[in-house]
Amino acid sequence: MVNLNPTSSFSISMHLEVPNRSGMLASIAQGIASVGGNISTLDITEQTRVLSRIDVTVDATSTEHGDQIVEVVKSIPEVRLTSTFDRTMQLHRGGKIRMESKIPLTRQSDLAMAYTPGVGRVCMAIAQEPERVYELTIKCNTVAIVSDGSAVLGLGNLGAAASMPVMEGKAMLFKEFAGLDAFPICLDTQDTEEIIKTVKHLAPVFGGINLEDIAAPRCFEIEARLRAELDIPVFHDDQHGTAIVTLAALLNSLKLVKKSLDTVKITINGAGAAGIAIAKLFMTAGVKHICICDSKGILSTDRTDLNPEKQEFAVAQTGTLADAMVGADVFLGVSAPGVVTPEMVKSMAKDAIVFAMANPIPEIQPELITNDVAVMATGRSDYPNQINNVLAFPGVFRGAIDCRANQITINMCLEAAKAIASLINPNELNREYIVPSVFDKRVATAVASAVQKAAREEGIAKY
Amino acid sequence: MVNLNPTSSFSISMHLEVPNRSGMLASIAQGIASVGGNISTLDITEQTRVLSRIDVTVDATSTEHGDQIVEVVKSIPEVRLTSTFDRTMQLHRGGKIRMESKIPLTRQSDLAMAYTPGVGRVCMAIAQEPERVYELTIKCNTVAIVSDGSAVLGLGNLGAAASMPVMEGKAMLFKEFAGLDAFPICLDTQDTEEIIKTVKHLAPVFGGINLEDIAAPRCFEIEARLRAELDIPVFHDDQHGTAIVTLAALLNSLKLVKKSLDTVKITINGAGAAGIAIAKLFMTAGVKHICICDSKGILSTDRTDLNPEKQEFAVAQTGTLADAMVGADVFLGVSAPGVVTPEMVKSMAKDAIVFAMANPIPEIQPELITNDVAVMATGRSDYPNQINNVLAFPGVFRGAIDCRANQITINMCLEAAKAIASLINPNELNREYIVPSVFDKRVATAVASAVQKAAREEGIAKY
Repeated sequence: MVNLNPTSSFSISMHLEVPNRSGMLASIAQGIASVGGNISTLDITEQTRVLSRIDVTVDATSTEHGDQIVEVVKSIPEVRLTSTFDRTMQLHRGGKIRMESKIPLTRQSDLAMAYTPGVGRVCMAIAQEPERVYELTIKCNTVAIVSDGSAVLGLGNLGAAASMPVMEGKAMLFKEFAGLDAFPICLDTQDTEEIIKTVKHLAPVFGGINLEDIAAPRCFEIEARLRAELDIPVFHDDQHGTAIVTLAALLNSLKLVKKSLDTVKITINGAGAAGIAIAKLFMTAGVKHICICDSKGILSTDRTDLNPEKQEFAVAQTGTLADAMVGADVFLGVSAPGVVTPEMVKSMAKDAIVFAMANPIPEIQPELITNDVAVMATGRSDYPNQINNVLAFPGVFRGAIDCRANQITINMCLEAAKAIASLINPNELNREYIVPSVFDKRVATAVASAVQKAAREEGIAKY
Repeated sequence: MVNLNPTSSFSISMHLEVPNRSGMLASIAQGIASVGGNISTLDITEQTRVLSRIDVTVDATSTEHGDQIVEVVKSIPEVRLTSTFDRTMQLHRGGKIRMESKIPLTRQSDLAMAYTPGVGRVCMAIAQEPERVYELTIKCNTVAIVSDGSAVLGLGNLGAAASMPVMEGKAMLFKEFAGLDAFPICLDTQDTEEIIKTVKHLAPVFGGINLEDIAAPRCFEIEARLRAELDIPVFHDDQHGTAIVTLAALLNSLKLVKKSLDTVKITINGAGAAGIAIAKLFMTAGVKHICICDSKGILSTDRTDLNPEKQEFAVAQTGTLADAMVGADVFLGVSAPGVVTPEMVKSMAKDAIVFAMANPIPEIQPELITNDVAVMATGRSDYPNQINNVLAFPGVFRGAIDCRANQITINMCLEAAKAIASLINPNELNREYIVPSVFDKRVATAVASAVQKAAREEGIAKY
């Protein structure tokens, strides 16, 4: 794809030794700029009369680009590159999360209370009154992030071990945005029954289960079964998290173009976990006209290759994605890079809304259609309107766990979406600001509160 | 049992309001003393001309004793009890451990590296080179503490949820004494095959598996199978941790009485996980004469009710525990409170060694035999010579994980025991100091180092 900006996810750091002489920094900066690198930090760490030591961090667009930047810097006369490292890899060394004690263990009495013999009394209290596990253990604040590594980001079936960095990252987000303690459970099995059994066996430790990066259609059965068989909330973020944030973005976009949920025609490309869940939540919200496409085109009643989830959304129409986009008010992509052309967007209805959410490379680059759409959103942080699940899942779990809801219903998801949308004031709302920033501290609280309210109204909240 | 000392595991805290007048503190202290309570802290938190607010914490011997203390304090004239709480329960509220991010997530670039899109590159690196999971995830420092709740402390089969406080406490110990991140995995199944399968499914996340409080004989098969089928160290602490520390204590006790491993007669009461493991490690260390008893008496070749683990130690002798103790040099109890009488101890050989390790109430109270034995040890922190697993497991895992041993062999356990014993200098060694304190900072390092050395010698260390 064209025009990818350098990002910190491909940044490299270099330690340099250069003569302490005017013009040296300029030639380094020039060299880096000449190959399109973007300097993000530059520190002069040491300086003598003759020598400067410099740490410079440069954002690149790819690993290869990073290598190219290093080569250019090395070739600058009198610059000595003493070492270089890949910041993203460096940051992952030893993992990104750790377990801490809440209580110091420095005296005999600490041990006697936190461990034997005092702990025995706490165990007995739970054995006699099982509900107290929520009061006396970490269960009340702990979420399992469960993956089988079968659909890791957009990268495919990488397996349990390779999915770990994502699940650790997710645990960081749970902590940062909702104060929840989450732990990665990456399973070395991709058998539906084994996954279900394993999660059920583990459930005593956790107050909620977040399913993550499990391939469709397996993910549907796993979620449905665990919801039915466990008494704690189970949530497949790739489905419902994505659906919530997408709906929030849609609600605000429709305000801008003055169209309504029940009349707009929506085309969704991608009939995996996310696409199906978005369609379901949209229907609950009041959308009447949805056409879903998969890699073979429109989910049509004529087709014989549809799984039950796809069948539910089959329509009389047949054709390609291009056919499905003609006259559509909204295009939602949860599919693959570059599958949409500017011509397809131009065939949409007036004031088209395009959410191209394939990650990291969207269905169509925003630059190509800036003037053809009313609203454009992606999953990327380097464009406006980032549709990012982190707006939803921390608050959803915070709310569900705090009110001890035994599940997360579609109505709770609907209210979460409305709560996210409502954080943008009408006078702030514009085509480049349809969802709050992921760093907007109000989001998780607003979502948690809406989720709790909905759970209470449905009678599934314990508190 | 008689003479139980008040401990912090039964301590209660009281907030009091009393007139600010000389003699008030004395009458409170006297009241508490009159029923045998032991004041551990006393703070005057606020004082006006007329009033003092006092926080007082009192150790008791039981919950009932705590209630009795509260009643006495309430009955003191002019003392107003404003609130009271059970410190051990209080300390457990919300659980004892938490998950933390190692890296701040405050800027867009943090997110882009720790989560999408940067994390994708880290996932790919592991997928392409699976060994890198040790470098780029928490696996290199993370231990699963696995229990099915079937043998929680001495309390029996309390189930998964009620075992949580123990496993959280264990996680605290792993952190405090070895810097390891451990996580409780309390399983809602007590089926051997299900436990094995579940742990195997979870293994990608962990660098080691610590089995805990799983009933015998199931624990033997679970450990053996997991050792055979996983490539990370698996260690059943109730077996091997106990065996290591017991052997360390024995090695030093024998130095005191000038007897040798290969000639002493040892009677073990308790043929569960701990008893069998102790016997096996002792044999490896060079002990020749071991007689094990279970609740039905000596494990004798005549008996037809022995499981395979017990059969391995069956002897020609028959009889009761009392029979087995006659002439024995060493008695080791890993059984039940009060099953040994002073007469039984008096029947032992000269310079008898008694380790009465039933928890929290030993096989015989030390006070009853002080003058009849050369060395006495228990599992309790309020008597000298506490035989506590925390001397072993943190260092054992630290060592095994750091050298990437794929298992923990009996030889590694043997070396760990010797390392613990060696920390007591000959000139310090005495009948009340045969093992280091659990707070002795040298222990985990000494154990880790011995374990690594043994692993390298056996050729099972990767580093």
